[in-house]
Amino acid sequence: MATSALPRSPTQLRALIRQGRWARPTAGLAPGHVQANLVVLPKEQAFDFLLFCQRNPKPCPLLEVMEPGNPEAIHLAPGSDIRTDLPRYRIYRHGSMVAEVEDIREEWRTDLVSFLLGCSFSFETALIAAGIPLRHIEQRKNVAMYITTIPTSAAGQFSGPMVVSMRPIPQDKVVRAVQVTSRFPGVHGAPVHIGDPEAIGIRDLSRPDYGDPVEVKPGESPVFWACGVTPQAVAAMSKPPLMITHAPGHMFVTDMRDEDLAVL
Amino acid sequence: MATSALPRSPTQLRALIRQGRWARPTAGLAPGHVQANLVVLPKEQAFDFLLFCQRNPKPCPLLEVMEPGNPEAIHLAPGSDIRTDLPRYRIYRHGSMVAEVEDIREEWRTDLVSFLLGCSFSFETALIAAGIPLRHIEQRKNVAMYITTIPTSAAGQFSGPMVVSMRPIPQDKVVRAVQVTSRFPGVHGAPVHIGDPEAIGIRDLSRPDYGDPVEVKPGESPVFWACGVTPQAVAAMSKPPLMITHAPGHMFVTDMRDEDLAVL
Repeated sequence: MATSALPRSPTQLRALIRQGRWARPTAGLAPGHVQANLVVLPKEQAFDFLLFCQRNPKPCPLLEVMEPGNPEAIHLAPGSDIRTDLPRYRIYRHGSMVAEVEDIREEWRTDLVSFLLGCSFSFETALIAAGIPLRHIEQRKNVAMYITTIPTSAAGQFSGPMVVSMRPIPQDKVVRAVQVTSRFPGVHGAPVHIGDPEAIGIRDLSRPDYGDPVEVKPGESPVFWACGVTPQAVAAMSKPPLMITHAPGHMFVTDMRDEDLAVL
Repeated sequence: MATSALPRSPTQLRALIRQGRWARPTAGLAPGHVQANLVVLPKEQAFDFLLFCQRNPKPCPLLEVMEPGNPEAIHLAPGSDIRTDLPRYRIYRHGSMVAEVEDIREEWRTDLVSFLLGCSFSFETALIAAGIPLRHIEQRKNVAMYITTIPTSAAGQFSGPMVVSMRPIPQDKVVRAVQVTSRFPGVHGAPVHIGDPEAIGIRDLSRPDYGDPVEVKPGESPVFWACGVTPQAVAAMSKPPLMITHAPGHMFVTDMRDEDLAVL
């Protein structure tokens, strides 16, 4: 199915995914609606992970946390089923990925708590609307992501460095990029760093830890935002007996509008 | 001891309180620093309460959640001891207040989780700095608070109506009051309602459910903000075996500056 033939309504899109008719990335689908990262953990680990997110709102902006065992995102997507409504999932046991699957009904348990976290798609839409070009989107690449020396605030068993995404921004648009993304703390918010990569422990911009490298041209500054890969990386490091996440780029499409996330 | 003789540093002020030399309200003390509401619950109830706060950030703005059994607010007030550093506490068992005490060392257990929540003192400082008069402060009264028909989002055993505080604002300053408080989502943020009290279930402004009534004069609008009494009221309704809170007005004074809370 071509992207252009897909329904624009989040409800209809989730229904299609539930039927197994779309197992590809969700970038650009249901435009104007918030897409979310997924982390599923047993209740045993959920308090500490919720605390970790609360202490680190920039990399871990919580949009919804679901009751143990409840597969419906009652606030962001009434009628949804988190076990079937994402195109693709990754299953981790004791920190190692053991499978990539199209639904998680067989894994579901009454003690599983689902965390939905903001993703950068929403603020990228706002940047583009403000006339700020984004090279990785123009070049149809994944955004470049780096492990930094910026510490997160630990919570129980969860700790580790912050992962950031980098976007080259024309120098005369850097201030505007700060302003635009500051409106969206629910999807990572303002940058965590502007300029010199080494100041946050990044040795070589051309060798990202995740995603694809993009060139920073003369007259541009690298601008770094906290990245939603952080909570997944941190959770994996603590080696919980079971963790389920979305597969990269295969997000949960919610009914919430991007603009509903704006603080001002 | 007169208020004017008290140290202006939060660390020194907490030391004085710890020594039992100040057991009175904290309004106006350590000016420019954030004061916090306290709710202490056993770990058994802590996940659901953390979830409740995450779902209701306007009435329940979390500033810090402490590890089970840890009495030190390591982020907001390094070196502090939550068991001794507030002037006065209330102890609830199964939803009923059983004691008001000056320290809680005898009640402390390794499974107790302390929640520090934003309080309106910080945004009131910002309103006054913006030239917006606040009648209850001028008249040295407690702010008027009302139980509304605005529902909160339930989490596990926690649910109940939102409690709001009301401040009469001159009509030509209402927009500015919205702008100023929008900068401070960590301490309740923008108003939840402006004008007609009946629209949110308040029958009679002259009879608040908590605090003292203040007059709304001609040319003023009543403006309503989500209130930190909400989480205490909701927690008490669920009748946990043990809950400890600050006594009204006797807050935890942190090292954080009010301006550190501003989003823009």
